[in-house]
Amino acid sequence: MTAAHAARHAVDDWRKAIGPEHVCVEDERLAAAATATFATTQRVSAVLRPANTAEVQECVRIAGRHRVPVYPVSRGRNWGLGSMVPTSPEAAVIDLSRMNHIVDFDETLAYLTVEPGVTFQQAHDFLRENNSNLFVAVTGGPPDGSLVGNALERGEGSGPYGDRAYHICGLEVVLPSGEVIHTGFRRFANADVAPLRESGVGPSLDGLFIQSNLGIITQLTVWLHPKPKFFDEFTCPVRDTADLAALLDAVRPLVLQGTIASHSFGFWNAYKLLAIRAGYPWTVMAEATPLNFRALHGRELWMASGALFTHSEQERIAVRAIVEEALAHLPQPPFFVTDEQRAQYPEPNSGLGEPTTANLRSAYWRKRGGAAYLFPAIDLDRDRCGVMWIHPTLPFIGEKVVKAAMLMESVVIECGFEPLIGMSCVSGRCINVYLCLMYDRDVPGEDQRAVACHDRVLRELIDAGFPPYRLGVQSMESIPHAEGAYEELLRTLKGAVDPHDILSPGRYDLRHLWTSDGAARA
Amino acid sequence: MTAAHAARHAVDDWRKAIGPEHVCVEDERLAAAATATFATTQRVSAVLRPANTAEVQECVRIAGRHRVPVYPVSRGRNWGLGSMVPTSPEAAVIDLSRMNHIVDFDETLAYLTVEPGVTFQQAHDFLRENNSNLFVAVTGGPPDGSLVGNALERGEGSGPYGDRAYHICGLEVVLPSGEVIHTGFRRFANADVAPLRESGVGPSLDGLFIQSNLGIITQLTVWLHPKPKFFDEFTCPVRDTADLAALLDAVRPLVLQGTIASHSFGFWNAYKLLAIRAGYPWTVMAEATPLNFRALHGRELWMASGALFTHSEQERIAVRAIVEEALAHLPQPPFFVTDEQRAQYPEPNSGLGEPTTANLRSAYWRKRGGAAYLFPAIDLDRDRCGVMWIHPTLPFIGEKVVKAAMLMESVVIECGFEPLIGMSCVSGRCINVYLCLMYDRDVPGEDQRAVACHDRVLRELIDAGFPPYRLGVQSMESIPHAEGAYEELLRTLKGAVDPHDILSPGRYDLRHLWTSDGAARA
Repeated sequence: MTAAHAARHAVDDWRKAIGPEHVCVEDERLAAAATATFATTQRVSAVLRPANTAEVQECVRIAGRHRVPVYPVSRGRNWGLGSMVPTSPEAAVIDLSRMNHIVDFDETLAYLTVEPGVTFQQAHDFLRENNSNLFVAVTGGPPDGSLVGNALERGEGSGPYGDRAYHICGLEVVLPSGEVIHTGFRRFANADVAPLRESGVGPSLDGLFIQSNLGIITQLTVWLHPKPKFFDEFTCPVRDTADLAALLDAVRPLVLQGTIASHSFGFWNAYKLLAIRAGYPWTVMAEATPLNFRALHGRELWMASGALFTHSEQERIAVRAIVEEALAHLPQPPFFVTDEQRAQYPEPNSGLGEPTTANLRSAYWRKRGGAAYLFPAIDLDRDRCGVMWIHPTLPFIGEKVVKAAMLMESVVIECGFEPLIGMSCVSGRCINVYLCLMYDRDVPGEDQRAVACHDRVLRELIDAGFPPYRLGVQSMESIPHAEGAYEELLRTLKGAVDPHDILSPGRYDLRHLWTSDGAARA
Repeated sequence: MTAAHAARHAVDDWRKAIGPEHVCVEDERLAAAATATFATTQRVSAVLRPANTAEVQECVRIAGRHRVPVYPVSRGRNWGLGSMVPTSPEAAVIDLSRMNHIVDFDETLAYLTVEPGVTFQQAHDFLRENNSNLFVAVTGGPPDGSLVGNALERGEGSGPYGDRAYHICGLEVVLPSGEVIHTGFRRFANADVAPLRESGVGPSLDGLFIQSNLGIITQLTVWLHPKPKFFDEFTCPVRDTADLAALLDAVRPLVLQGTIASHSFGFWNAYKLLAIRAGYPWTVMAEATPLNFRALHGRELWMASGALFTHSEQERIAVRAIVEEALAHLPQPPFFVTDEQRAQYPEPNSGLGEPTTANLRSAYWRKRGGAAYLFPAIDLDRDRCGVMWIHPTLPFIGEKVVKAAMLMESVVIECGFEPLIGMSCVSGRCINVYLCLMYDRDVPGEDQRAVACHDRVLRELIDAGFPPYRLGVQSMESIPHAEGAYEELLRTLKGAVDPHDILSPGRYDLRHLWTSDGAARA
């Protein structure tokens, strides 16, 4: 039986299993599902929209029977990293957006158990309607993005629980066999702590299902952080990239000792700041690209920002003083946003869990004809915004961060794009980088130029010792080469859990290293 | 070839591989290795003492060739949970205590990379010699216990990094195949962040090697916390077990919001407090057991204690005020230890990483003839101290904690022992329990009575919804029954990674659920 035959038979079975109206094979729908914010060649054979875990199980069992690959997405809003496009050349997408129930909520113990279709906006609205004092760490991405999807991609949010993959537990997983498991203490029928801690007793399996293709997550618990009595932000202008070093080396001890929380300190360069507020200055630039601040001004401005969570007026003053003292020696010391300034600020407070499209609008940077808010709803895939994220991770050492920033600046400019860079501290030990290549997919040749730039930057970063912590669907093959035994172990685990290789083939699985007989390449 | 033959051939090969002087088969040594702080029936066929990772690999390869099970221990100080006794009826113990090198240390990024033989005392001394401002969270266990062993058992320490399994990364693992892998970013030759974050790119495997039998950890990185400028402790007497509820419900928000850090709040009952300070009151009790405070006084006293880490005099005052205000409504509000009181306190400060035997001495509670400090060195195995830990985990809800405490109190007393109980907050969501059965192994019948008590308490806790988060070698079969697919997945992973089942058979692997054909029992 050919692959095409198998796919057709699978579609018939899926229709019976979840209802024909939830198995889409219309060309337009399939083309949309195969569209990302950069060039893709993958084909989507069907879009399945199961309503619940039992239907997901059925979809997977049918896929296994017909040996047809499936690619689950939570809401498909992985913009800049592949949207809902599969990692394999052809697959049926399992779109989990109908599974959008908030399954459990506890104000006292501060958690929310959700299905993959639950969005940031939905979670935020739910908490507000419940007069909750808790907030979910939100991203700079789309408010209708999935909480679960973000966690499983090792995405991050703002604030103490921003390192999201470490603030979830109790995964419900549909295995490639179609069976369901629950991780941690949730595998025991009556354990009170099931939503309260990650590890159970015995080995912890949660990590296996993050950035992987070993199971489909149909529920998980997200921990929520209480709103502080006072939320204070400070900002700190940085004159040039090299000057980041002194600032970072002064901030690091504050994060290590807990004065500043995880993902509560970040910094952005002028390209990024400008793109959030405006489109490309075509007129000023006389239609030329790229914009090059260093060539224009001889330097590259950055803005750093930190957030403090305090619980009394006295603590607020004390903690602020600690920060001010630690940063007082810098050429440009920090200034604190006053309550009055904050009240006048037009955007929602993403530091306290309010979703916003502010950052998203920057995706229209190189698009002519107006920014995103002119559209009824932002849709980067539809609007042919060219967006490619590159996500290296760096040690929290000023000199190293400057080295990485300089590398990104120069290579991206050389390739004809602007280096839109943001960074955020994961801990007092390391920093996540959000480098974005923004372009207009309607400009001929730009897709190709962007890929070439992406590949070159990523390779040079890896060579410099700064590997990526997250990849787009087009760059799964860019995972740096590791020791052979590690790659073989991953292959062994995949083979054991998914012997027919039906779940998201190629997703973070180092497939390019496999030999045809299934062993890892030496 | 019989199992005995295979074992003999393996011993020959091990002698060649690591030197005959490091393969012990003397009866006395084997008997010591098979001795725990409770009755055991396991036999140890040899004790291997490899010097480095390459020798560990050789030991494992030889074991695989001869199909002889091996059981690695870091230093074998898992007192109360099995010491160095294997989980299988017979095995060769791989004693990693010769691998006691501190491989890497970074004051700026606050980490220590260690081999399994590195002890808490050694790490502490090393940091002091290096005038470090960092500390490693220490346990109430032996100062010559292993940092690595503690992490891999999901043991805990005091202070913000007390939940140790979440503050390690970059594992070096010898797989059952004999091959070596490195987890997280450490698998890439040049990644700067290798010792700085747990997850790499793609699925995270660290959890697979914790409380498991899938690999032998020969190195890992432990994160260190900076010493605060001020370390303040408060204590809070609790009149009776039921009164814990109000205290806990008042403390929980302080932990959730970060005012009190993980493992910086705990509480102990009168039995535990007394045992740390004195032996069993044989005379007062006219030789009768058990001591029963509730029968004597009509109530059960507890003492709670919390620690605050602050970084300026002003912050110290502010944070202290937050705690005082939050707990002011309690019948017995907290009092803070003054600097003068602290200076006079005889014990090292375990809250700031100073190892101490204070807690350990309580293991001699029921031993006549003097407490531990009369011996040249504390050795619970040698001294036939009866010690069995029981470690359930509870939600951070006053009423639930009281329910669990009452259950433990009544069942243990009924069984004729004292319920020595300590508890510590893992987070604002859950609490770890340290229930200890202490007895004298020289009293005829006590070994059997203690096991019966242990099994009954554990079962009743599980039935009440409080499963264990850590088990002793004798209680691996007590893991509560979970859904079948989960157990089958664990079996699949073990089979894929260790097809000849040579590594620590029975360790946290739910073996009692396996059928003879290797599938999980339905």
